[in-house]
Amino acid sequence: MKIVNMNDGISIKRSIEEGTEEQRQVVLSILEQVKTNGDDAVKTYTKKFDGATLDDLRVTSEEIEQAYGELSDELVAIIQEAASNIKTFHERQRRESWFTTSLDGTLLGQKVTPLDSVGVYVPGGKAAYPSSVLMNVIPATAAGVQRIVMVTPPDSEGKVPAGVLVAANEVGVTEIVKAGGAQAVAALAYGTESISAVDKIVGPGNIFVALAKREVFGIVDIDMIAGPSEIVVLADEQANPAYVAADLLSQAEHDERASAVLVTPSQVLAERVQEQVEKQLAELPRAEIASKSIEDYGVIYVVDNMVAGVEAVNDLAPEHLEIMVDEPMTLLGKIRHAGAIFLGPYSSEPVGDYFAGPNHVLPTNGTARFSSPLSVDDFIKKSSVISYSKEAMKQNGNSIAALAKLEGLGAHARAVELRLEDLK
Amino acid sequence: MKIVNMNDGISIKRSIEEGTEEQRQVVLSILEQVKTNGDDAVKTYTKKFDGATLDDLRVTSEEIEQAYGELSDELVAIIQEAASNIKTFHERQRRESWFTTSLDGTLLGQKVTPLDSVGVYVPGGKAAYPSSVLMNVIPATAAGVQRIVMVTPPDSEGKVPAGVLVAANEVGVTEIVKAGGAQAVAALAYGTESISAVDKIVGPGNIFVALAKREVFGIVDIDMIAGPSEIVVLADEQANPAYVAADLLSQAEHDERASAVLVTPSQVLAERVQEQVEKQLAELPRAEIASKSIEDYGVIYVVDNMVAGVEAVNDLAPEHLEIMVDEPMTLLGKIRHAGAIFLGPYSSEPVGDYFAGPNHVLPTNGTARFSSPLSVDDFIKKSSVISYSKEAMKQNGNSIAALAKLEGLGAHARAVELRLEDLK
Repeated sequence: MKIVNMNDGISIKRSIEEGTEEQRQVVLSILEQVKTNGDDAVKTYTKKFDGATLDDLRVTSEEIEQAYGELSDELVAIIQEAASNIKTFHERQRRESWFTTSLDGTLLGQKVTPLDSVGVYVPGGKAAYPSSVLMNVIPATAAGVQRIVMVTPPDSEGKVPAGVLVAANEVGVTEIVKAGGAQAVAALAYGTESISAVDKIVGPGNIFVALAKREVFGIVDIDMIAGPSEIVVLADEQANPAYVAADLLSQAEHDERASAVLVTPSQVLAERVQEQVEKQLAELPRAEIASKSIEDYGVIYVVDNMVAGVEAVNDLAPEHLEIMVDEPMTLLGKIRHAGAIFLGPYSSEPVGDYFAGPNHVLPTNGTARFSSPLSVDDFIKKSSVISYSKEAMKQNGNSIAALAKLEGLGAHARAVELRLEDLK
Repeated sequence: MKIVNMNDGISIKRSIEEGTEEQRQVVLSILEQVKTNGDDAVKTYTKKFDGATLDDLRVTSEEIEQAYGELSDELVAIIQEAASNIKTFHERQRRESWFTTSLDGTLLGQKVTPLDSVGVYVPGGKAAYPSSVLMNVIPATAAGVQRIVMVTPPDSEGKVPAGVLVAANEVGVTEIVKAGGAQAVAALAYGTESISAVDKIVGPGNIFVALAKREVFGIVDIDMIAGPSEIVVLADEQANPAYVAADLLSQAEHDERASAVLVTPSQVLAERVQEQVEKQLAELPRAEIASKSIEDYGVIYVVDNMVAGVEAVNDLAPEHLEIMVDEPMTLLGKIRHAGAIFLGPYSSEPVGDYFAGPNHVLPTNGTARFSSPLSVDDFIKKSSVISYSKEAMKQNGNSIAALAKLEGLGAHARAVELRLEDLK
């Protein structure tokens, strides 16, 4: 892992997959097929891409029961505890409808309503993550969404991983559909004979899923399209180099294009972390992916002081930020851009990835400048409420008409003046 | 305005301008030019498209002073009062950072931070709306955004309408730039010598502005891309047909593609509104636009009863909904999808367009199913905060490692296990 001096300039190398025109054409054709032929098209693509021949796209209650049998009781209990922690945190995000009243009888307000229905995409195969089910579904249930459809590609025998089924059942997914790729996104957006269309689609997926989500955006809402995962560790000389290295590597093992960056004013720490990364890499099961990621996207930046370090962090606007300094809480107010902020030596990123409660779906690729972790806010919408009184109309009607006229909108002015005439 | 029976099926005709490939190519070339040549490119396009030769892209304080001179004191006072109402409403939307603590010493929270900087696009020419300045800027200032850059195309003499300048000055815009179209969007997204890049671009514009916003999305955030304006009025036999007609027409005068729809169980009201629309149309200054809109996109639906009416409204998910029935508040809980809901005879849409306080930037084209009015929420972002204690790590480390292993992520498990070994 290379050490770079701050004076050489700080940047984070990020690799965003945009998809090729050829991939886009494949996706457009799948979307069209599913729109036209519904379930039949979904089944045909599931046969083609996943190798599974399905009579029924739905996961049955027997399959869910069987999934519980495949996991140890201990693991089920851990999934339940993680789900409970995540639920507790997200329930704090709930919003209330509110209104204000005036002496003239006017009532103004904001009505909060959950979305009617949401589709959650859960990747299959090696990347089958039960934690992804918890993190994408719980904010929706906490928001009050009544219908949650999970889609996930089956293996060639038509099976879905046990951990994913157990997680889905624990958090109240209402329908589980064996479908993946662009065909699953199409089914959620347009609806088929057996799957009603949803209002929003969330969850990570491969490039075909990402392109399909981009295409159906507007017909339904989508969450952000995530880039590779990133971590920035901001640490001083008192940080434990083994912890810093381990946390950088936990990011690097995700993906060859994941970024792991250390920012520190300490040359000593920089060198020790460098050693530790080498040492720990050798022992990792996913060493090949992690070392490629560290080689291509890993950097240790040595900065002049902590002020420069904080500035660098804000410039990078990382998805995950760990602060391992003396009194980390004192830096919190200075951090303007980060998806999730982990404070102190025991707030290792996996704590947040799985268990503590906050969401692990976070803004990547510098979008923490303007985006937020997935939350209850993503599963509600607001409506303004205006109940204007007769007295308020009498009092303000002329002002309203004057503004309409300033903008050349005579019918707007007329609508108000009609009432004013009646109130004379 | 045609009357249609519910049994014929309810739908709202909506016309979304997607832009042609040719327009997209024009936009891409403008973006590239501004990215490369900065202010020079902006000035060249401003000369080409707006006919104005500018030395300086900035509006000066002298120009603002002059703008005040062009408006009556009364009108300035009305703009101030509208701004004050809108500010009061949006300040209610402010969010607080929050945290929870556990007995084991863990702290979890959500930190709310305003965006650093925002660009607000304000259309020029005939569509120069001071109200658009108020509605797009005030939520940003209420959120705490420090830098707000307004861009608006000048006329051929390099002037910006007085109402727009006064509104911008009243609400605390920090920079006003004379530029419009895709070139203004490019300047905001990439920055030029004289304009620093912003984090988010909001505000309505023509098809070139919409296409440019779509292209720069990801580099910066954007607001939704609005379709033509829509109103649905839900009314019973006691509603005043003249008010209903006037409000439908105030929507219709916006745009030939605007939609105005009445849903009512009363055949009598339907016919009276039909008469009133004809009658009032004749007196309108923008009669040509309004009658084209009513002809192409206006419908009166007669439904079997109010239950069917409410269902129809939820199916339409309108941008604006007026409810003119006996006890309108009793229907509020049944409305699931609407951008803004106007209750009772005096809550005419212009009340909300200009003056009452809630935002007039609302979800169009049925997106009220999943989108919300522009609000403070659009100008903040949230960061999760995780401060895990030593005790919590001791207690939960094994569970976290087990979840990591279930997902095959060994380095995640290792990062936790390292700490557990030290804590033995």
